[in-house]
Amino acid sequence: MNKIHYGGDYNPEQWPEEIWSEDMALFEEAHIDTLTVGVFSWSMIQKDEETYDFSLMDKIMERLHKEGKKVCLATGTAAHPAWMARKYPEVTRTDFQGLKHKFGQRHNSCPNSPVYKGYSRLMAQKMAERYAGYDNIIAWHVNNEYGGSCYCENCEKAFRNWLHHKYGTIEKLNEAWNTMFWSHYFYDWDDIVVPNALSEHYGRENVTAFQGITLDYMRFNSDSLLNNFLSEKEELNKITPAIPVTTNFMGMYRPLDYFKWAKHLDFISWDNYPPDMKSEARMALTHDLMRGLKNGQPFWLMEQTPTTTACRDINPVKRPGVMRLWSYQAIAHGSDSVLFFQMRQSKGASEKYHGALINHAGRNDTRFFIEARQLGEELSLLGDQLTGSETSARVAMVFDWDSWWAVEISDGPSRHISYQQTMIHFYKALFALNIPVDVIGPDTELDQYDVVIAPLLHMVKDDYHKKAEQFTAKGGTFITTFLSGIVDENDNAILDDRPGLFKKLLGIRIDETDTLLPQDFNSICVESGELKGEYPCNMIFDVVKTLGAETIGTYGKDFYANTPAVTRNKFGGGEAWYIASYPDLDFLKKLFKQTASNYEIACKIESGEGVEITERKKGDEIFTFVLNHAEEEREIALPKTYHSLLDNQTYEAGMKLKVKAKDVVILKG
Amino acid sequence: MNKIHYGGDYNPEQWPEEIWSEDMALFEEAHIDTLTVGVFSWSMIQKDEETYDFSLMDKIMERLHKEGKKVCLATGTAAHPAWMARKYPEVTRTDFQGLKHKFGQRHNSCPNSPVYKGYSRLMAQKMAERYAGYDNIIAWHVNNEYGGSCYCENCEKAFRNWLHHKYGTIEKLNEAWNTMFWSHYFYDWDDIVVPNALSEHYGRENVTAFQGITLDYMRFNSDSLLNNFLSEKEELNKITPAIPVTTNFMGMYRPLDYFKWAKHLDFISWDNYPPDMKSEARMALTHDLMRGLKNGQPFWLMEQTPTTTACRDINPVKRPGVMRLWSYQAIAHGSDSVLFFQMRQSKGASEKYHGALINHAGRNDTRFFIEARQLGEELSLLGDQLTGSETSARVAMVFDWDSWWAVEISDGPSRHISYQQTMIHFYKALFALNIPVDVIGPDTELDQYDVVIAPLLHMVKDDYHKKAEQFTAKGGTFITTFLSGIVDENDNAILDDRPGLFKKLLGIRIDETDTLLPQDFNSICVESGELKGEYPCNMIFDVVKTLGAETIGTYGKDFYANTPAVTRNKFGGGEAWYIASYPDLDFLKKLFKQTASNYEIACKIESGEGVEITERKKGDEIFTFVLNHAEEEREIALPKTYHSLLDNQTYEAGMKLKVKAKDVVILKG
Amino acid sequence: MNKIHYGGDYNPEQWPEEIWSEDMALFEEAHIDTLTVGVFSWSMIQKDEETYDFSLMDKIMERLHKEGKKVCLATGTAAHPAWMARKYPEVTRTDFQGLKHKFGQRHNSCPNSPVYKGYSRLMAQKMAERYAGYDNIIAWHVNNEYGGSCYCENCEKAFRNWLHHKYGTIEKLNEAWNTMFWSHYFYDWDDIVVPNALSEHYGRENVTAFQGITLDYMRFNSDSLLNNFLSEKEELNKITPAIPVTTNFMGMYRPLDYFKWAKHLDFISWDNYPPDMKSEARMALTHDLMRGLKNGQPFWLMEQTPTTTACRDINPVKRPGVMRLWSYQAIAHGSDSVLFFQMRQSKGASEKYHGALINHAGRNDTRFFIEARQLGEELSLLGDQLTGSETSARVAMVFDWDSWWAVEISDGPSRHISYQQTMIHFYKALFALNIPVDVIGPDTELDQYDVVIAPLLHMVKDDYHKKAEQFTAKGGTFITTFLSGIVDENDNAILDDRPGLFKKLLGIRIDETDTLLPQDFNSICVESGELKGEYPCNMIFDVVKTLGAETIGTYGKDFYANTPAVTRNKFGGGEAWYIASYPDLDFLKKLFKQTASNYEIACKIESGEGVEITERKKGDEIFTFVLNHAEEEREIALPKTYHSLLDNQTYEAGMKLKVKAKDVVILKG
Repeated sequence: MNKIHYGGDYNPEQWPEEIWSEDMALFEEAHIDTLTVGVFSWSMIQKDEETYDFSLMDKIMERLHKEGKKVCLATGTAAHPAWMARKYPEVTRTDFQGLKHKFGQRHNSCPNSPVYKGYSRLMAQKMAERYAGYDNIIAWHVNNEYGGSCYCENCEKAFRNWLHHKYGTIEKLNEAWNTMFWSHYFYDWDDIVVPNALSEHYGRENVTAFQGITLDYMRFNSDSLLNNFLSEKEELNKITPAIPVTTNFMGMYRPLDYFKWAKHLDFISWDNYPPDMKSEARMALTHDLMRGLKNGQPFWLMEQTPTTTACRDINPVKRPGVMRLWSYQAIAHGSDSVLFFQMRQSKGASEKYHGALINHAGRNDTRFFIEARQLGEELSLLGDQLTGSETSARVAMVFDWDSWWAVEISDGPSRHISYQQTMIHFYKALFALNIPVDVIGPDTELDQYDVVIAPLLHMVKDDYHKKAEQFTAKGGTFITTFLSGIVDENDNAILDDRPGLFKKLLGIRIDETDTLLPQDFNSICVESGELKGEYPCNMIFDVVKTLGAETIGTYGKDFYANTPAVTRNKFGGGEAWYIASYPDLDFLKKLFKQTASNYEIACKIESGEGVEITERKKGDEIFTFVLNHAEEEREIALPKTYHSLLDNQTYEAGMKLKVKAKDVVILKG
Repeated sequence: MNKIHYGGDYNPEQWPEEIWSEDMALFEEAHIDTLTVGVFSWSMIQKDEETYDFSLMDKIMERLHKEGKKVCLATGTAAHPAWMARKYPEVTRTDFQGLKHKFGQRHNSCPNSPVYKGYSRLMAQKMAERYAGYDNIIAWHVNNEYGGSCYCENCEKAFRNWLHHKYGTIEKLNEAWNTMFWSHYFYDWDDIVVPNALSEHYGRENVTAFQGITLDYMRFNSDSLLNNFLSEKEELNKITPAIPVTTNFMGMYRPLDYFKWAKHLDFISWDNYPPDMKSEARMALTHDLMRGLKNGQPFWLMEQTPTTTACRDINPVKRPGVMRLWSYQAIAHGSDSVLFFQMRQSKGASEKYHGALINHAGRNDTRFFIEARQLGEELSLLGDQLTGSETSARVAMVFDWDSWWAVEISDGPSRHISYQQTMIHFYKALFALNIPVDVIGPDTELDQYDVVIAPLLHMVKDDYHKKAEQFTAKGGTFITTFLSGIVDENDNAILDDRPGLFKKLLGIRIDETDTLLPQDFNSICVESGELKGEYPCNMIFDVVKTLGAETIGTYGKDFYANTPAVTRNKFGGGEAWYIASYPDLDFLKKLFKQTASNYEIACKIESGEGVEITERKKGDEIFTFVLNHAEEEREIALPKTYHSLLDNQTYEAGMKLKVKAKDVVILKG
Repeated sequence: MNKIHYGGDYNPEQWPEEIWSEDMALFEEAHIDTLTVGVFSWSMIQKDEETYDFSLMDKIMERLHKEGKKVCLATGTAAHPAWMARKYPEVTRTDFQGLKHKFGQRHNSCPNSPVYKGYSRLMAQKMAERYAGYDNIIAWHVNNEYGGSCYCENCEKAFRNWLHHKYGTIEKLNEAWNTMFWSHYFYDWDDIVVPNALSEHYGRENVTAFQGITLDYMRFNSDSLLNNFLSEKEELNKITPAIPVTTNFMGMYRPLDYFKWAKHLDFISWDNYPPDMKSEARMALTHDLMRGLKNGQPFWLMEQTPTTTACRDINPVKRPGVMRLWSYQAIAHGSDSVLFFQMRQSKGASEKYHGALINHAGRNDTRFFIEARQLGEELSLLGDQLTGSETSARVAMVFDWDSWWAVEISDGPSRHISYQQTMIHFYKALFALNIPVDVIGPDTELDQYDVVIAPLLHMVKDDYHKKAEQFTAKGGTFITTFLSGIVDENDNAILDDRPGLFKKLLGIRIDETDTLLPQDFNSICVESGELKGEYPCNMIFDVVKTLGAETIGTYGKDFYANTPAVTRNKFGGGEAWYIASYPDLDFLKKLFKQTASNYEIACKIESGEGVEITERKKGDEIFTFVLNHAEEEREIALPKTYHSLLDNQTYEAGMKLKVKAKDVVILKG
C-alpha cells in the first residue's frame, strides 16, 4: 500500500549489532516503515583506491529487507574519506577567502575535482550494482544536502570553460560584464580568475566590484554541483532504471537554483529545520516552493527533527504536539512522507545532542517517542488516503534565484533588503488569509492563475515582462514591487526609466529611489476604498510619476510626500499593481484580501488567528487540513458537513469545531 | 574666461558612439564645460606588453576638443589590466592578512612592484606624448584616489631600504623602536618583516605589539604611493610642463599623509562623499583641510554625486537643493570647481546605481538634471567673479597625520578616542559660531593666527613645542587637550611628566590618566566667568596638578573630583589652555566664543542655527556666503548693505534677509 | 627573613645604566626586595646560533646582588629572536586560520619546533650555568605566560604521535572519536590533520564538526607547552637543584589544563589582571583555584599592575587604596608575594602606557608610588607573620578543564552557557556569604570536605561518579547542575538517561533539555522551607523526572511548569542536589547558606555588603582578613577580642570596628 512514508535516517554502522535488534523492536512499535541508510558511508565502504568493503552495508541491507522495511538508499558521497584528501589534495575545497582546506567536516569535496567526480560516480555505480536486487529500495538518495562552493584552480579552469561555452567569444563576455568599467577588459579567457575575497570581493560574499562575474560564478557553482548529481544519477539509471532518484534540498537555500535542478530529480525532497518556534508561515512557503519546483508534484519531507536541533546557538525542544502539527503541515502542502533525522541519537561528534526518535538510553517512553508512535499509528490508519493528492491554487508567487542573487549582490540602493525576508513577508499576508498559493518559478506558465505576486522580481529574463503583460491583459492581476524589472539577465541596467521592462505594464516612471535605515519609517496613505488607512513603510522609497496608472496610496512625508507609493494600472482586462516601498503586513493583508475577493478567492472556513486551513485534492475528494498553530484552543465554524479522518467522526454543518492548541483536524468532504 | 569648472567624470568608452551625441546635447543644456576622461582606461589602451591602442581615446579627445570642452586628463593607472596580473603576479597586492590577491577591483597595484612602476610611468609618458598637442587639457589627473596598502615581498624589501635610508644603522633603528622590549632586538636589516596580521598585529590594523614598526610602515606606505605619483608626474612634466598636475584626494583619509603629498601637487583636488545627510560641519572641516594643504591655495572639488552613492548600506538621495548647497559650500571654502562623478550612469557593475547627471534613460527632465542645469546656469553667470579668491582666518586648527596614526595604534589609554571624530567635534564648535578656520599642518607657520587649537597633538616633531611657546609668548592663545605632547617622532614617551613637551607651556603636571567607557560621564565644573556651568565630559580624564597654571574647570565626581579638568596658563603675552577630558560641544562653543572675542574675532552676521556664513576675499572684494543647511527658512539681519550675486539684487543694511531651507545667498560688499 | 616578597618585573636592559641607580634608590624607598629579571632577554643574549653575550645580563645580576635584592630569574624564552625566525621559519606559529606567521609579538614559538625546543632548552642551560653561583636567586621563572596554540606541520606530526601513544591502535581512535559519523573513519595515522578553520572547524575555535579530535588537540596543545616547560626545568634542575622552578599562570586560562601542569611546578605563581573594577569575587575564585592547584600550598602573585593596564579598550586607573586592598586579598587567599608588572614604565612599544611603580618622569611622589611605598612599609613590618600560612575550607568547588573544554566546544544544547561565567556565578554566592572555599581539581580527594559543589561537571573521568557517591554516602552534600555527568572522557554520550553517570546519585532521569535565549526567563518555585520563594532562571531547562529524589523547586511556566527544577536525593548519610536550570544569585545564596548551616559552617564575623572576610592559619594562629571592597565605610561587630596587625592595636570583643572604603584590617586571635 502506498501510505505516507514514515521513518528517517538510520545509521546502524555507528552501533554494535546487538543494538540493531533493539532498534527494530522500537521501529515496529512506532510504525516506522522507511529508512534512509548509507548517507555517510563512503569511508566505511571504500578503504582505499582499490578496496571496497560492503560487508557492513550488506548486513544493514539484509536486515532491513528481512524486517520488511522500505529503504531510501544513499550513494554516500556527501563526505569523502580522509585517505582521499591526503592522497589527492585536489578533492578538498578552497574557500571564499582563497584558503585551501584539508580533510574535515562534510560537504567538503570540490565539485570540479576530477578525482572526486570519478570516485563519486564510481561509488554510485558500485552501490547500484551491489543492491540492484533489493525490491525494498524505494528511492535513491544521491549525496546529501548539496551545497557550499569552491574556489580552487580546478574550479577556475572549469569556470573559464563554462564561460566560453556560454558566451562563445571574449567580446560578448566583455559586453555582458561591462568590463570597460574599472579597466576590466579581458583579452584572454585565462585572464579571468574566480571572484572571491582575493579578487573582486570586498571581504563579504555579497560585496563585489563586478556583479557580472559574481552572478555567473553563482550560476556556475550551482551547475557544478548539479553536474555531480547528474553523473551519479546517470550511473544509477543505467543499473536501476525503475528506482526514482532524488537528493534532499534545503528549502530556501540561496546557493543552488533549485528550479534548474528540479528538472533532473524524479521527485523533490527536502529537510525542514526552521530557525525558531514561530516559523509556520515560513515553513508553509517553503513547502509550497518545494511543491512548485516540479509543478505541484508531491514531494518528500526527507528530514525533520523529532525534538531538537544541535547546531544552533539555542536548540529549544519542540513543544508537545508540535512535531505532529508540523508533520501534517508538510502533508497538507504536498508531502508524501514524514521522515526524521534521525532514528537513534549518535553517541559522539557534532550531532550528539541532536534529537532522535531513540535517545541515548534507548527508551520507548520518552515524550518524543510516544508522540512519534502516536503519529505512526495515525499515518498507518490513514493508509493511502492522502498520498498522491494535489494542491490547487489560483494565486501564485514568483520565486526567482537569479533575482535573489542579483538583488543581494548589488551595490546600491540598499543592503537592508533581503530577498528571502521579503518573500516571507509577502507570503505571511496570504498565509494569514488562508489563501492557497503556488510558489512558482520564472518559467512556470501563468494560465491557471488569477493573481500573480512577484516581489523583488529584479531581473527579467526570457521576456518575462511580455508573459506578465499577456497574463494581465487576459484579466489577471499582477502585483510587483520596488526593485523589479530593472536589470537584464547579465545584471545590466535596462536603459529606460525604471521599472525598466515593467514600465509599460505598470504605467509609471521612476527617476529616484531613496533608501533609509530600517528604523526610519514613512507611510503609505490610502484615502478611500477598502484599503483606506495609513500604513508604515520603510527601507526603500521609489519616487514615482504616473504614466497612465492610478495612484492608490501616497507617501506621508519627506520631500516626496503626497506622491505615489502604490499604483494600479488597468492593462487589457486586468490590472497591474506597483508597491514602491516596503509595506507593513497589514497593508499587504488588505491588498491581497481585496485582490483575491475580486476573483472570489477566499478560504471557505473562518478561523481564528494562528489557524491554518489548507486543502488537498485527490480525484473528486477534497481534504481540508485544520492546523492550529496558536497557543490556545480555537473554534472553527464548519460551513458544511465533513467526515473527520483522524478521529473517524462526522461533523455537521454549522457545528463549532473545537481544535486544541497545536492540534490537527483533517476534514473530508 | 576662468570661471568655476563645471562637469565631472565622463566614460564614453562604456557606450556606443551614438550615445556620445546625446551626451553632448545634454552637456550643452546643463552648461557642462569640464570633463575628466580616461580614469580607468588602462586595459582599453594597453592590450599587452607591447601594444597600445589609442583609437577610442583619440576619438574621445577629438570629440571633446571639437565640442569646446575643457579636459582633465587621467593617466589611467588606478587599475592595472587583467593580463598584467596574470603575466606578472607581482603587480597585485598582498593584504593585511598576508594573503596574495589576484586580479580584481581597482586600486589594486602593489606600489613597490617594479613591473607596475615601470608600466604606469610608461602609461603616463604615452598619454602625455599622445595628447600633448591638445590645448583644452587644463589638468593632469594622475591615477585616482591613491590609497590602500600592500604587504608583499617587494614591499618588504623596499621597506628595509626605506628604513636603512632613514636610520642609517641598525642600532639607531633598535633605539627608535625600543626593541629591547619583548626580545625584538634586530641584528640584520633582513630580520625585519612587514607588520601585519602575520607578524606584529593582533588581527586588527590598529592593534600592534610594536608601535614603532607599524608607524614607520604607515609612513613608508604613504611614501610608496607618493613615489608612484611622482614617477608619473615626472614624465608628464617632461612632455607637458605647462599643464598642472593633480590627483584626487579623499579628504580626511588616514593612510596618506596629505601634508607630505601636497608639496608635490600643483593644486589640490578631492572627492566629497560625506557619510550622511547631516555632514555640513564635517565637509567644511575637510574643505578647510584641503585648502590648508597648500597654505590657502584654491582647490578643486573633483567628485561629488549629483544624487546618490551606491556603495553604502543605504544610499539616500540628496534632498532638493542639497546638491547646489553643498556645491556652493565647496566654493565658499576655496574650491574653483564643481565636478561630479559621473556624467552618465554606468549600465553594469558596482556603480550601476551610483547617481549621475544623465540616468539610464538618458533624460533631461529628472529632478537632479534640472537642478544641475540650474546650477550650471548660475555658475556661468557668476563667471570669474569668485575663482581664485581666498579665505583668511585668524584661528587655526592643527591637523597632523603622525599624531592621528600614533594615537590610534597606541595600546592604552583608550581605544574609544578617534582622532577624526575629535577633530570634527572641536571643529563643530567653531562651525556653529561661524568663526573662519584654517586647518593647518605641523609645518605651517603660526604668525598670521591669534588662536591655535591643537586637539590630540599626540606627537611632537621638529620642536613644535617651541613653536607653540613662541606663538603664545607673542600674545596668541594655544589650546590643546588630553594625550597631547607626550611622544616623540618615534612614538617613544617623553621622559618627563605628561603633557611632556607641552609641560612648560601649559604649566601643569599629569601622573595619571583615567579612562572609562563612553557611557560613563563625569563633568567639567566652572564656577564663574563666561564659561560658568557644568558640562558633561567622558572617555578620558587626566588627573592634573597645576604648576603655575590657573584652574578654570574642575571634575564633578570620582576620586579626582574638584581637581583641575581645564587649565589656563599665562605664558608671555598669551595664554595656553589644557582640556583634560573629552568635553561636550557646549563647553567648546563657549570656550571658543570667549577666546575669539578676546581677539575681536566674530562673525559679523547673526544667523540662526544651521546657517553657515563663510567669507571669501578677492583683492578688495569680500564675498559672504550664506548657506542655510537647516530644514526651515531662516532670517538673517544684514549689518550693512550688500549686493547679492545670484539674484543680482541690492539688500539694504538692517534688512532681514529670508533664506529658504537649503538655499544659498552670496553677498558682495 | 622569609617575609612576603615585594617587587616585580624589572627591565634595566631597556635603560642606560645611569637610570639603574635612580631605580635602586626608588626601590629602597619603596621597600622593594624582589625583582624578576630577564623575562624577554633572549634576543639580547643570543645574537646568532653560536654567540651568547651575557655582558649586560651579568651587569644586571651583579648590581642586584650588590644591592641585596632577591632575584626571580627568567630563562627568557617567551619570545624567540628575530634572526631565529628568519633562519628557521619553523619556529614561528601557524594560527587557527591555518596561516603561517612571521616574526613578531611574543609567545610566538611553535611548541613542537625542534629548533625552538633545542634552543630554548639550551638557553635555560646557559642561564643556569652562568648564574648558578648567585645566592640571591630565589626562583626560576621559566618562559612567561605560556599560552596560545599552533597548527603547523610539526604540530601535526607531533599530534599523530601523541594520538598513537594515547590510543595504541587506529581502531581505538576511531571508536573514541565515533568516526563512523560523517564518513570520518581513519585507516592511517597520517590521514589525521590538525583540527582548525581549514579542517574540522566552522570558523570559530568552539565550533567543530568533531568534538573528539578538537578535545584531543586541546589536550595535546596543553601537553606540548608543558613539554617545553619540562625540558627547560630539566636543565635548571641539573645545574641548580636547590632553586625552585615556576612559570607564571594566567588564572582561569582555558587553553592550559593547569591541574595537569601544577604537578610539575615547585610552586604556583600567577598574573592577576581582572577585566574590570568590580572583580573581587572573580579574583577570589582565581586565587582559590591557584591555591587548589597544589592542594593548598602557598602561591605567588607574580604580576599585577600598580595602576593601569594598557592592552584593554579602556584602562581605568586603580582607585585610591585598591592596589593595597587587592594585594592583601591575594595574601588572604594564599599568596606569599606581592609583585608588580612592572618597576619602570617602558618608553616605547605596546606597554608604554601600562602602569609601573616608576613612571616616565622617574618620580617618587606619584599617588601610585606613594601607595606602593606605604604597602612596602607594611609588608616589611608584617615580616614573616603571614608567609607560609594556610587556608582551610570545608566547602569545595570542582574545577575541571576537560569539562570546560567539552561543554564549550559542544554542538548543542546551548552556546550561551559559559563554563567560566557559571563558575564565577556559583562562587559569587559563596563569596557573598564569606564561606571559605577550596577550588579543587577532579583528582583532589574529598575527605576533608562537607560540601562539594560541581557546576557543569560535564565530563566524568576516572569513575568520579563513584567518588561523589562515596563522598555523599559518608554524609557529605554534593551539588551539581544541568549538563553534568553526561559524557565520558572522549566526549561520547553516556548511553543511559541523563544525568548519565550521576543518575544513581541524584535519583532523577532527564529525557529532554530545553534551551532558550538568555532574555527568556522561567522561574524556580519553592513552596516552603528556608528556600521558599520564586527565583528567576534562564538559558537551560532540563525536564526532570524523579527516581527517588525529592522535588525541592519546580518550574513556574512553559510546558514543563510544575515539574522539578531543583531536586534533592538522600544518598546514604548525605544528600545530592540537582539544579536543572541556570538560577539567579539569590537562589544560590540561600541554598548555599542553608547547606553550609547544616554543617555549622558560617562566617564568624557579620559584615555588610562588599566586605570580604577570609581566614588564614599558621600553626595555632588564625589571621582574619577584613577587606572592604565597598565604596563606603562599613562597621564590623567583633565576636571576640583581636589583635590588629597593621595598626598594632587590640580590639575588644563586641566592639564595632569601622573599616573605611577599600581599607584592610588583619586581625589575629
